This record gives sequence, C-alpha cells and structure tokens, in this order.
Amino acid sequence: MFIILVYDVNQKRVAKVLKKCRQYLHWVQNSVLEGEISEANLKKLKMELERIIRKDEDSVIFYNLRTTKYSSREIIGLEKGGQENII
Amino acid sequence: MFIILVYDVNQKRVAKVLKKCRQYLHWVQNSVLEGEISEANLKKLKMELERIIRKDEDSVIFYNLRTTKYSSREIIGLEKGGQENII
Repeated sequence: MFIILVYDVNQKRVAKVLKKCRQYLHWVQNSVLEGEISEANLKKLKMELERIIRKDEDSVIFYNLRTTKYSSREIIGLEKGGQENII
Repeated sequence: MFIILVYDVNQKRVAKVLKKCRQYLHWVQNSVLEGEISEANLKKLKMELERIIRKDEDSVIFYNLRTTKYSSREIIGLEKGGQENII
C-alpha cells in the first residue's frame, strides 16, 4: 500500500519521530513522508511511533492510498525535504 | 479531484495561509487540509497562495488524488484539526 504520513509533534520528539519514519518511508518535506509499505511494516511503524509520541500532545496522520500512488504532487515555494530516496 | 494539502510556512503567515486554504478545503489538522476541489478552483487557490507565501521560506504541497479519495485516514495521538466541515 502507499502511505502519506504527516506528523505534528512536540519539538523535543521531532528528531526521534523523523528518524523512525525514515526507516520505512521517504522523507518529502519537513513533517511529510511517503512511500510503499507492507501492511506488516505499517503496523510495526504505528506501534513504534505510539511508543515515541505523547498522545496528549502529538499527532500523526496516515493517509492510506491502498494500491495506487497519488496522481501528482506539486510543491509551491521551497522544497525543504529530502530527495535522497526518490527514484 | 481530491486534494491533500500540507503547508509549512513561517509563523507570521500561518493564519493567512490557513484562512485562504479553508475557503476551498476542509481543515484536517494543524497544517493539513483536504477535500474535493475543481480544477479551476485549485488553480485559483495556488495563485492566491503564491501571493501570500514567501517562496524562499515557505512551502506548500498539493497531493492530487484525481477522482478518488484515499482509502483510509488514521490519526494516532491528538486530533488537533477542525472537524467542522467533515460530512
């Protein structure tokens, strides 16, 4: 399945959350990551994030696009994210 | 088409950007909005945002899912966003 993940977490935990997410997904830009991921790994990622975040302060959204990637992605302004994993 | 919009802009311009985006999309959570939008309105929104943001500091991503909505959206942690427009 294809996932777009957006996190909004306390500054103290940003580095940890980003590091964890990058083990599974490609970093697009600041708080956004995306990529193909298996159902098993998605479950794992969620469990691991739940251990890192504080549920009363932080928030992570998973958009599940199932089998299909989005049709297009357009950025206006700065490209802040990493391109290291983009094929 | 269905759009997921994620913005990352300087604090000074957040209120303006959010206000503008909410004229066209539903607010999901902090810097994330989503919704059905016509091609014409999407063009308008982009043009209007380009007038508000500073391209050397700010960044807005548009994920275009074309005709289909995502399969599921899951939030772990806090639901920070507005639910006012969710049907």
